Amino acid sequence: MPFLLFIDTRSDDKKIISIDAMGGDKGPNAVLGGLNQYLYQNGEDSVHFRVFGDEKKLRKLMAKYPRVSRNVEVIHAPNVIKPTDKVMDVLRHAQDTSMYMAIKDVREGKSSAVISAGNTGILMSLSKLALKTIEGISRPAITTMLPSGAGDSRVVVLDLGANVHCDETILFDFAILGSVYAEVVGKMPRPKLGVLNIGSEETKGNETLIHLNKILTENKDKLPYDYIGFVEGNDISAGRVQVVVTDGFTGNIVLKTVEGTAKLVKRVVVENFKKSILAIIGAFFLIHVFKRLKHKIDPRSYAGATFLGLRGFAVKTHGNSDALAFANSIKYAVDLTAANLNGLIAERARALADIRSTIKSEE
Amino acid sequence: MPFLLFIDTRSDDKKIISIDAMGGDKGPNAVLGGLNQYLYQNGEDSVHFRVFGDEKKLRKLMAKYPRVSRNVEVIHAPNVIKPTDKVMDVLRHAQDTSMYMAIKDVREGKSSAVISAGNTGILMSLSKLALKTIEGISRPAITTMLPSGAGDSRVVVLDLGANVHCDETILFDFAILGSVYAEVVGKMPRPKLGVLNIGSEETKGNETLIHLNKILTENKDKLPYDYIGFVEGNDISAGRVQVVVTDGFTGNIVLKTVEGTAKLVKRVVVENFKKSILAIIGAFFLIHVFKRLKHKIDPRSYAGATFLGLRGFAVKTHGNSDALAFANSIKYAVDLTAANLNGLIAERARALADIRSTIKSEE
Repeated sequence: MPFLLFIDTRSDDKKIISIDAMGGDKGPNAVLGGLNQYLYQNGEDSVHFRVFGDEKKLRKLMAKYPRVSRNVEVIHAPNVIKPTDKVMDVLRHAQDTSMYMAIKDVREGKSSAVISAGNTGILMSLSKLALKTIEGISRPAITTMLPSGAGDSRVVVLDLGANVHCDETILFDFAILGSVYAEVVGKMPRPKLGVLNIGSEETKGNETLIHLNKILTENKDKLPYDYIGFVEGNDISAGRVQVVVTDGFTGNIVLKTVEGTAKLVKRVVVENFKKSILAIIGAFFLIHVFKRLKHKIDPRSYAGATFLGLRGFAVKTHGNSDALAFANSIKYAVDLTAANLNGLIAERARALADIRSTIKSEE
Repeated sequence: MPFLLFIDTRSDDKKIISIDAMGGDKGPNAVLGGLNQYLYQNGEDSVHFRVFGDEKKLRKLMAKYPRVSRNVEVIHAPNVIKPTDKVMDVLRHAQDTSMYMAIKDVREGKSSAVISAGNTGILMSLSKLALKTIEGISRPAITTMLPSGAGDSRVVVLDLGANVHCDETILFDFAILGSVYAEVVGKMPRPKLGVLNIGSEETKGNETLIHLNKILTENKDKLPYDYIGFVEGNDISAGRVQVVVTDGFTGNIVLKTVEGTAKLVKRVVVENFKKSILAIIGAFFLIHVFKRLKHKIDPRSYAGATFLGLRGFAVKTHGNSDALAFANSIKYAVDLTAANLNGLIAERARALADIRSTIKSEE
């Protein structure tokens, strides 16, 4: 039984989450409102929060949230990273910003996850610098679940933009990250996993993908997921695969193409309903359908994307997250830390180390 | 005035189109039905057709279409390329197949375009082998228009899968192909053109894209299109750009992701309409909206994808095209040949040759 779940002995401890309170477009009030909502819905016993930002401002805002005051430690951060800041400019003097201080908290073992609504690129770069990758994993990947197939089905797609260039080893590691994520977070045991390509035949695509497919196919029986080979763009949303592995360039374009197309289809539907003389009756149906559509398609309903593969979780919430979106992201971060995701990733990486080592020797 | 339209002196001549009658899933009857429909709608004066396939079968089927018999020359092709054939297997013995004979017709100057509903990969490979690229153009690209923005707006996207690896010169040439296509076929004069990337900043993406963006930005004023820099996946369908240039790997995945997502959104809408107790009234609206949606989103409504950049046009129609789809594709091919698209591409390539030559010298 090589893939037994690694038991995290600290799983009964109180979880600690660090929050960058200054990163979002809606400011610290949305963060504190989100904390209040989370604590109201989930109780005050299991999680402790360390909130980074302008202490004076935070204390003033917290006055109206006694529940938050009881469960939160405020750590003063004199500076803020603005959404428009450039990665290269920020790296040199990020030390005293709320985002970096919250990330450093995870590195120092004071918390197990950081949440920020700030600039994705900067959150990624700082997390990568501050937090090491899990042993046996070469690179972290931005990971989320996209809508796919019937009902509430989802597909895990990674990398969504952290790594433009990916060799076979990096993609091999992404398959570990993605399959564990699907299993633990998505509750999809032994998920079907595919590598994104421009055709399903083994000769399609570039040399990296052909080589990776060869390794995975040869070792199919030893993998902790059901490797189904190459998949294409239309397979992502068709529901026949639960994890899709790709490089960060392609993944980022896929993510944004899905968002753009969903928006376009919605636009066509609305435009044409409006044209109808029976528009008022139509609108009645539309409200219901769009509520479901939003739940299925809207990226905000996924609560956040994770920067997966690091020793600690960096959760990115949407820049204009409101209190509800923050409450969802907090729940998501708490679930991530409670699930021993990283313990299982390390375990799987160890179990697959022999197969992984054959990649380099064959090159 | 460097970009004056090159006048094709043969433009008053009768156009000749070659058709592979055996490639589609629905067989030669759909092709002949499509021809009949095209001739009925567009008159019998302007185009002559050379139809390749099993002569006996074709003659028998043509008996019921006197209009087709008057305007069509049947050329016997003893063999057929099956949709499931592999490219490598076919290349060696394609000589006597209906697809290859129809392509060769274009090479020999007997016609100006070939239409086939057969295997895309094989049509591409054979066309590339048989037809040379236009002078000054390095590679042909699969090109089509996708839905974008309001009303009937479209965006030209290329390459959709012909070239997995593309350097700066190839992408530079795709910008010429795509912008002329947008202008002539899409009736979008001086189109806005963007290069697909994972962010709009000039430092994003890989070295090829950064270098290409530098060249295009520096020469912005000399380009026959409005270069707007890097665009992202969600921009494709947002209506802010009319031509999107990318490599065939990314483009193919984008194309299929758009199709898959549109199908998924439609599925969510249908699923939720069905759940409603007022489903019968809802269905009334849905039929109208989906008719519009189909017109906007369904790839079959675009009539076909072109293999652009070759001396002659190879038009691929959907494998399961019926007579109506074939009639649309024939109209599309006739329009392509009538528009002097290739003359304009050659003209533009000449005008931009100096800028293009700086790409290599800088590398």
